[in-house]
Amino acid sequence: MAETTRQSYIFEHTERIRWVDLDAAGVLNNAVYLTLLEQARFAFFSELGLLEGAQFPFLLGDTHVRFLLPGGAGETVTIRTGVSRVGTKSFEMVYELESERGVLARAEATLVWVDSQLQSIPIPDAARALISPS
Amino acid sequence: MAETTRQSYIFEHTERIRWVDLDAAGVLNNAVYLTLLEQARFAFFSELGLLEGAQFPFLLGDTHVRFLLPGGAGETVTIRTGVSRVGTKSFEMVYELESERGVLARAEATLVWVDSQLQSIPIPDAARALISPS
Amino acid sequence: MAETTRQSYIFEHTERIRWVDLDAAGVLNNAVYLTLLEQARFAFFSELGLLEGAQFPFLLGDTHVRFLLPGGAGETVTIRTGVSRVGTKSFEMVYELESERGVLARAEATLVWVDSQLQSIPIPDAARALISPS
Amino acid sequence: MAETTRQSYIFEHTERIRWVDLDAAGVLNNAVYLTLLEQARFAFFSELGLLEGAQFPFLLGDTHVRFLLPGGAGETVTIRTGVSRVGTKSFEMVYELESERGVLARAEATLVWVDSQLQSIPIPDAARALISPS
Repeated sequence: MAETTRQSYIFEHTERIRWVDLDAAGVLNNAVYLTLLEQARFAFFSELGLLEGAQFPFLLGDTHVRFLLPGGAGETVTIRTGVSRVGTKSFEMVYELESERGVLARAEATLVWVDSQLQSIPIPDAARALISPS
Repeated sequence: MAETTRQSYIFEHTERIRWVDLDAAGVLNNAVYLTLLEQARFAFFSELGLLEGAQFPFLLGDTHVRFLLPGGAGETVTIRTGVSRVGTKSFEMVYELESERGVLARAEATLVWVDSQLQSIPIPDAARALISPS
Repeated sequence: MAETTRQSYIFEHTERIRWVDLDAAGVLNNAVYLTLLEQARFAFFSELGLLEGAQFPFLLGDTHVRFLLPGGAGETVTIRTGVSRVGTKSFEMVYELESERGVLARAEATLVWVDSQLQSIPIPDAARALISPS
Repeated sequence: MAETTRQSYIFEHTERIRWVDLDAAGVLNNAVYLTLLEQARFAFFSELGLLEGAQFPFLLGDTHVRFLLPGGAGETVTIRTGVSRVGTKSFEMVYELESERGVLARAEATLVWVDSQLQSIPIPDAARALISPS
């Protein structure tokens, strides 16, 4: 996959690392990185008006995270994200997590559109128009 | 990457999904999959005698997870794992998560060996001998 | 409140502490104790047949936890519990958490019965019969 | 215990509820309330200069939480706190958690001062002077 250029990031969300997000190694636990990606999705899709209450209309199908720097308690993380590709039933996003000390991680994710029974369905046209990269 | 063959999995660990591992969508939250991989590492490297107390001698450098089935509360997940490659300063593992309903996810991870200051160092020979795939 | 006697504990559930349950102090994080109480409730009310899918018919209204020993990764915790009082719209439970090293915590909780909109309702007679201490 | 008066709250910290903080009931999971109390402690004791890196000089000995309203994703919670009593080896704090919809919870906690081996020790005079309610 070609390196994601900065222009792909069209949305920015900030999240503060909690003390409990650290693990016994004293650094941001790896699983919390996925929570930070999820928070950026929650903020982005809330703004687009695509969430019903607290429900996402998609599930995570695939994700790839490259960990570059360990995060620490009290740091604020800026999560930049954008949609890089929209398919028939799924779409792809790119992410960059950065704190005051530098880039903590870069990631990609494939999200699969689902109905309320969590079954895969085609992305509705209205949603497709909203999320497609311009 | 070539498909990981079942023979690569040389260690098996079981973990029960907790109720709190479910999210507002009612399914196993995506970040918890990384926790399940971590638990398999904890069990595997404990058995190899490579943990000092609760400290891992490596950090997660890269991970790729393919989500195949949503997990549910009360399910027991079998996590199969193995080391697929050992380099100078890092090594790679493969994982398969399976519950009674089928394979929930497959994953790969690159782990970077570190000293007690979390700085990258070459994998010590004794550890290399223990983790190298035979 | 009088000290809870051992006879009050009529149900036992075991839960293994995960590595991620430890915090940066290297011990079982305090919030996870509430998760362990919740797991005991999940197991107890599953067995009683009072859960609908993954949904509890009550919310936690009040809890009091006395922390006696820090828990560690890999330890198995036995959670003993029982219902100590049943009121019109709420009931009370007692808990004891014990690992191989001794009693980690004792706790009490008041649970408030709710309908599917999470509004407080009287405990149905069938449920009352099942949970009332004999 | 006498009802804590509002004057006891001398420190205020805000924390945003994450999507993952919701559980399968769709509301802020009970264990996360303890994490929110912990975040207020982290901010308060950071400001007082009493943390060494990410390490607290005390452990939670006892806590009592009254849950008043379920929290929801995306809500910002204001946590008000203060020290209500300082003993020889432990001290007590009070907390109030409020979101835009009202008071979510009130809580008390007893914290036990410890050395770096997590053994109980008397509260040092300098720390006692900083935390004692005026």
